[in-house]
Amino acid sequence: MSETKVLADYVVSNRWDDIPADVRHEAKRAILNYVGCAIGGSGHTAVTTAIRALSPFSGERNASVLGRPERLDALHASLMNGISSHVEDYDDTTPKNYSHTSSPVASALFAYASANSVRGRDFVQAFILGFEAASRVGNVVYPAHYDVGWHMTGTIGVFGAAAGIGRLIGLTPTQMVWALGLAATQSAGLREMFGSMGKAFHPGRSAQNGYAAALLAQAGFTAGERGIEGPRGFAHVLAATRDLSKIGARLGLDYDLRENTYKPFPCGIVNHPTIDGAIQIHDEHHPDPASIVAVRLRVAPLVLDLCNQQNITKGLQGKFSVYHGAAVGLVRGKGGLREYTDEAVNDPQIKRVRESATAVGDPGITEDQAHIEVELAGGRKLAKFVEQSLGNIHRPLSDKQLEEKFRDQAVMVLPAADVENAIQLCWKLDQLTDVSELVDAAVPARASQPI
Amino acid sequence: MSETKVLADYVVSNRWDDIPADVRHEAKRAILNYVGCAIGGSGHTAVTTAIRALSPFSGERNASVLGRPERLDALHASLMNGISSHVEDYDDTTPKNYSHTSSPVASALFAYASANSVRGRDFVQAFILGFEAASRVGNVVYPAHYDVGWHMTGTIGVFGAAAGIGRLIGLTPTQMVWALGLAATQSAGLREMFGSMGKAFHPGRSAQNGYAAALLAQAGFTAGERGIEGPRGFAHVLAATRDLSKIGARLGLDYDLRENTYKPFPCGIVNHPTIDGAIQIHDEHHPDPASIVAVRLRVAPLVLDLCNQQNITKGLQGKFSVYHGAAVGLVRGKGGLREYTDEAVNDPQIKRVRESATAVGDPGITEDQAHIEVELAGGRKLAKFVEQSLGNIHRPLSDKQLEEKFRDQAVMVLPAADVENAIQLCWKLDQLTDVSELVDAAVPARASQPI
Repeated sequence: MSETKVLADYVVSNRWDDIPADVRHEAKRAILNYVGCAIGGSGHTAVTTAIRALSPFSGERNASVLGRPERLDALHASLMNGISSHVEDYDDTTPKNYSHTSSPVASALFAYASANSVRGRDFVQAFILGFEAASRVGNVVYPAHYDVGWHMTGTIGVFGAAAGIGRLIGLTPTQMVWALGLAATQSAGLREMFGSMGKAFHPGRSAQNGYAAALLAQAGFTAGERGIEGPRGFAHVLAATRDLSKIGARLGLDYDLRENTYKPFPCGIVNHPTIDGAIQIHDEHHPDPASIVAVRLRVAPLVLDLCNQQNITKGLQGKFSVYHGAAVGLVRGKGGLREYTDEAVNDPQIKRVRESATAVGDPGITEDQAHIEVELAGGRKLAKFVEQSLGNIHRPLSDKQLEEKFRDQAVMVLPAADVENAIQLCWKLDQLTDVSELVDAAVPARASQPI
Repeated sequence: MSETKVLADYVVSNRWDDIPADVRHEAKRAILNYVGCAIGGSGHTAVTTAIRALSPFSGERNASVLGRPERLDALHASLMNGISSHVEDYDDTTPKNYSHTSSPVASALFAYASANSVRGRDFVQAFILGFEAASRVGNVVYPAHYDVGWHMTGTIGVFGAAAGIGRLIGLTPTQMVWALGLAATQSAGLREMFGSMGKAFHPGRSAQNGYAAALLAQAGFTAGERGIEGPRGFAHVLAATRDLSKIGARLGLDYDLRENTYKPFPCGIVNHPTIDGAIQIHDEHHPDPASIVAVRLRVAPLVLDLCNQQNITKGLQGKFSVYHGAAVGLVRGKGGLREYTDEAVNDPQIKRVRESATAVGDPGITEDQAHIEVELAGGRKLAKFVEQSLGNIHRPLSDKQLEEKFRDQAVMVLPAADVENAIQLCWKLDQLTDVSELVDAAVPARASQPI
């Protein structure tokens, strides 16, 4: 049987009761993390630039962009949600194929649910199915597809958005096959865009294009019916090697969502153990920053290949400085978006501690590990060895830590009461009568007025 | 120097006076052919279905779709123009890379020019530059890119639309580099869609996406600056082998447009010599269809692999029947869109002649050739050998034949006076003060009212 049809039938016929409780809970964790990132990135220049360029082409402004006052049509809102949620590189990662799957899927679903009444349970189910569809398509082509230069978040996200929206609008199995075909034939996104706004464009465009694929299929716009597995289809054209059995293997029994991970810090993952260790020293000892005379790091050699910048003045440079990561952890006890602003990088205390730091690449230290030693005035030494990096699959962020990550981003944009309300609504999302309740909490108040 | 930058600089800095007269004339031939195909396909179900699905998402309805009464925003109009102009497989072909380049480029440009005032000369120039940009990007990756399964009309069209629109809106060189990068990262379209509406979706979506790329770049949305040649860029990711020198080689001196070809008949090219020969017999002898007792074809063996259907009832099947091609040529003296309708396939005279035909595959006959023998009641025989197929690069359609092709399609949609007016406006397009004059002639009258 055609893999496209297998996947389409699964997405169309899945029943809520078939989904295990732990998967439903992980979906809400992923959505909480997603919404926080979308709000946190909503003020980024990439978002405001895209809105400025494309807002004149918006249709009926009946959809919300998370974290923003503007209203757009739901397709454009999908695009903007995708850009904002990925632009700080703070969203989730599925380690099986290193894609950031929630962004394209949830970006389309939230845009849809902001313009249409959707029951919470249906929303969570569509998210789970869209996530699984995208991730399984990714598993088929990973790693050859990634290695050659595709940005999987874009290339597979479009399948997830098509599947999720297609489920919500009630596509028939044949329409779902067409939607997946129209997704396949729009699959795009090059790693050459890394370092530019083009990277965050990928989940946005794939959310928008997958959504449009579902609408077209519903109207009867046909597509090749072997979009995934056909001889000129996605898997053959976009990957030198592939394993099509990964579409159907234990479908409905195994869920990639179970292995989803969430970044604790908005920077390259190789810096995470250092930041984590520095925060632990801060929380245990509360050293006076002024008393820190030296910081000595032992890290995996790769860390110094990638993040050896010390003399920096810009927030973005901070993301590529393991010294800055240590400094914000020790001085502020955290490493959120506001620790990677120009202000934070130029904060005199942080600057002094950063410049007091030295690092040694040690082949005996894995990329999940770091050793930190802090020497205080008077000679006292504080040390911490991090054996497993916070946020990886073996040491996942707790629900409380996810809440804290959400809060840290959302308070930049929303009143504190709305932030707490949005967190609670995420946890009970599957019980909501209408997802608009959460959307309303996740956009600034004036967004309720069309502009 | 970066190939992306070379191409961007060329598109931005080109002067009208640099373009040779024969290239300007070929551009007008390509545009005449394009507009006719867009009008001819404008009533196709693929177009009406896409409009039904996506019209609710249209922004300001200030742009026209060629051949249609509806108005949409210019991005959606680009999409619809692209679908209509390609859906009958009747548009042009660049034999160097077998792409159909005019559709994505002109679809975006006409949508733009229907919503904005554009001088005819600027339009023709933008078309030439967009065509050349797309075709050169295609030359870099052809044939490996095509062979693996990419539909080049989609994958390279997006570059042409970005370049053409970018030129019209006056992008700076850096913005043009971003526009080409955003085109590269949206490059998509699988041959697996052939036989479905998804095929015609490709030039439409690439027109729309290239147009959006130019708008985003103008607003300051950045992209990787080596979108074409970078190690994770278009040429490396989408083709197993490539020749980047084809971007810059004799740029501004050679024009792929010079080698553009136009189909005389809306069906697979292998049937063309047979139809051509049948029409020649019709025109020279005017045989009474009722008197035809046998039609004997000698054709290249490939023709019978692809087009050996004889017992047919549907218009689409007629495109895959060399017998039907012979019959419409002999009975009607033409092979336009109306010879490939259900009505034509079931026309008793055409059916009888089609069923009187036999064909032999002859390895001594090339795919550009056909031999036809018609036996009339009483034993008289009429014969014709076609040595070079009409419409190929060695026997191009004349300007008059292009006009006839345009007329044959456009009279299905527009009043005869508008058809003749549109033809004349195409020939003097570079002298028009505003391209809207041509657009107005190419849409039904009520299109001047927003719906």
